[in-house]
Amino acid sequence: MSLTIWCNAKFNETVTQRLVAAIRDRGHQLVWASNASASVLDAGGPDAAMNEADIAFGQPDVSQSRDSAKLRWVEVTTAGYARYDTPDFKETLGARGALFTNMSGVFAEPCAQHLLAQMLALARQLPASWNDQHQDSPPWNYTDRRAQSTLLNGQTVLLLSYGSIARRLVELLQPFGMKIYALRRRTYSEAGVHVIAEEKLSAVLPEVDHLVNILPESEATTGFVNARRLALLKRGARFYNIGRGPTVDQNALMEALESGHLDSAYLDVMDPEPLPPEHRLWRTKNCHITPHTGGGRSDQDDAIVTHFLDNLAAFEADRADDMANRIV
Amino acid sequence: MSLTIWCNAKFNETVTQRLVAAIRDRGHQLVWASNASASVLDAGGPDAAMNEADIAFGQPDVSQSRDSAKLRWVEVTTAGYARYDTPDFKETLGARGALFTNMSGVFAEPCAQHLLAQMLALARQLPASWNDQHQDSPPWNYTDRRAQSTLLNGQTVLLLSYGSIARRLVELLQPFGMKIYALRRRTYSEAGVHVIAEEKLSAVLPEVDHLVNILPESEATTGFVNARRLALLKRGARFYNIGRGPTVDQNALMEALESGHLDSAYLDVMDPEPLPPEHRLWRTKNCHITPHTGGGRSDQDDAIVTHFLDNLAAFEADRADDMANRIV
Ligand SMILES: NC(=O)c1ccc[n+]([C@@H]2O[C@H](COP(=O)([O-])OP(=O)(O)OC[C@H]3O[C@@H](n4cnc5c(N)ncnc54)[C@H](OP(=O)(O)O)[C@@H]3O)[C@@H](O)[C@H]2O)c1
Ligand SMILES: NC(=O)c1ccc[n+]([C@@H]2O[C@H](COP(=O)([O-])OP(=O)(O)OC[C@H]3O[C@@H](n4cnc5c(N)ncnc54)[C@H](OP(=O)(O)O)[C@@H]3O)[C@@H](O)[C@H]2O)c1
Repeated sequence: MSLTIWCNAKFNETVTQRLVAAIRDRGHQLVWASNASASVLDAGGPDAAMNEADIAFGQPDVSQSRDSAKLRWVEVTTAGYARYDTPDFKETLGARGALFTNMSGVFAEPCAQHLLAQMLALARQLPASWNDQHQDSPPWNYTDRRAQSTLLNGQTVLLLSYGSIARRLVELLQPFGMKIYALRRRTYSEAGVHVIAEEKLSAVLPEVDHLVNILPESEATTGFVNARRLALLKRGARFYNIGRGPTVDQNALMEALESGHLDSAYLDVMDPEPLPPEHRLWRTKNCHITPHTGGGRSDQDDAIVTHFLDNLAAFEADRADDMANRIV
Repeated sequence: MSLTIWCNAKFNETVTQRLVAAIRDRGHQLVWASNASASVLDAGGPDAAMNEADIAFGQPDVSQSRDSAKLRWVEVTTAGYARYDTPDFKETLGARGALFTNMSGVFAEPCAQHLLAQMLALARQLPASWNDQHQDSPPWNYTDRRAQSTLLNGQTVLLLSYGSIARRLVELLQPFGMKIYALRRRTYSEAGVHVIAEEKLSAVLPEVDHLVNILPESEATTGFVNARRLALLKRGARFYNIGRGPTVDQNALMEALESGHLDSAYLDVMDPEPLPPEHRLWRTKNCHITPHTGGGRSDQDDAIVTHFLDNLAAFEADRADDMANRIV
């Protein structure tokens, strides 16, 4: 069975050739969007060529994907899929037997390593030492800095969400002997992790040394990390965000940092992005920023195409249950 | 049996009280040095009071420790013990049945976490983002920074030395699936680690992505990481040093960084220390510095006294084999 695969993601040359060859070798037809995105991760607009496709790969237009009766599978090149995450979209696809998959598996590894990098950087006082090194006359702050340096061992971490990224982070944290809580909607107990529901949150926050936000963006998560919840945290706690900016009340966060209630924050996502140069967050006390690089991996294009081709093999064989990161 | 315990380390108030009480409760006598060090880690000079002691705890004078016929056990408050590490010192103590222990166990955990922090910080491009944030007008370097971000998975690391710090680092690296080599003098094969001797070094260096120096200071290790060995490393490799500064030819290191042969370095130890503000290392390209804070832990004094009291219990019971971090 020959499939028509529409794609609006722009990969590097080598990976593009690999994708083209693999699809041709399997007897399918690859159709590039007339308005291809500038990169793999950018949202594209509607494109007439997609109406003839069996599969859409990239960041297809939401309404067009919903309404293309021929389309049987959509794979997006990101882990976040807030634009597609509506009952209307998911039910319409489901009703006509179409599938929807994302790229959680590609970005979980870099995001988990990024979070551990941020946690350890703060524990080991790396930003303070960078700051010293970049003074006109670098001081040697040996005594204070050693006394401020901490170990992760025995500390308590609360993960907000317990999906691909959080699960991988739990594996990386295994050797440190931390107490780990994770929030999700469906709460099952799991070895080594205390899974909690939202109503338990207020009871747990006062114990927490590290609050790690990995929440997807949705109506339910907007402003989830608010002033009340930040105030419940232990004084001196640290906050990390690698999920999405709008899940945090940034004014409340900046206040908690300026007042010293929070020791520090390491943010990979903000609202808005790009964060404008004049935004107050850049200069907030002990607030460290990476520009949405959590999912960055030098082999990104290759990993995305591998994810797609593996899922394509399962799709061809009618094994939808074997497709990775299936949402619908 | 009541023992006289001489101490020249200066602990914080709470820990001092804990030490005093524990020694009194065990029926021993604590004698403070007349010239107590400014901190736990500073070397002290000779002190008459030590001549009457059975045990010296802190940083006792080397010749006096060697010559005090009454002294049966010396415990130093550091992991490095280069000053004591001479055949003369060790054989003299050994000949009169005296013991010598250090604090490897206290500092291995923070050093291993510090090394992982440095490895992940470079992999995730944290210094570059930190630098952007501190521009007058912070840029949003999303695309480049993501493309430069890497994963540790599948990369090769070579540990120079395979003692307490290296072993703990290997545990922390377990979830990343790296290829791990370790250099030591006594080479036994071990699960998950390729232990190599010095003559194998030249064959292994061209494979290495991360060269991690944890060598103690000694005649044999001075200038160990030299121009020849740095040149053998893969182009784009990273270098870390948490052992001791003099084990590296710093001029060769600076050249390898400036030429771009090495991608970057993260140094916790240097030569000299404190590194003078005008030293070229502070401004060497992609050279990141922490001021010998690798062993820093906020509970340091407590951990040191716990280490000593645990060893004291074994010493009292004549179970020298149960004493932690015994060198002689
Ligand atoms: N910074 C970056 O570069 C980057 C890269 C990749 C992803 N991300 C962000 O990270 C998010 C998570 O990624 P992932 O791959 O781990 O996602 P995932 O595997 O799809 O898991 C999502 C998790 O969120 C939980 N969740 C959703 N809504 C919730 C709510 N209202 N309350 C509590 N828990 C809720 C889900 O709980 P249930 O299991 O109970 O449904 C699930 O555990 C993505 O959505 C994206 O926004 C950022
Ligand atoms: N930056 C900091 O804050 C900090 C803190 C603590 C320690 N340190 C430094 O780190 C060093 C290591 O600490 P550790 O606790 O891991 O020490 P350790 O447990 O005593 O282990 C020392 C290791 O070094 C190896 N070694 C010694 N000389 C060697 C040589 N010439 N060639 C190859 N291997 C050699 C030993 O090999 P064998 O087993 O074959 O003898 C052993 O594996 C300390 O000596 C100290 O200088 C720094």
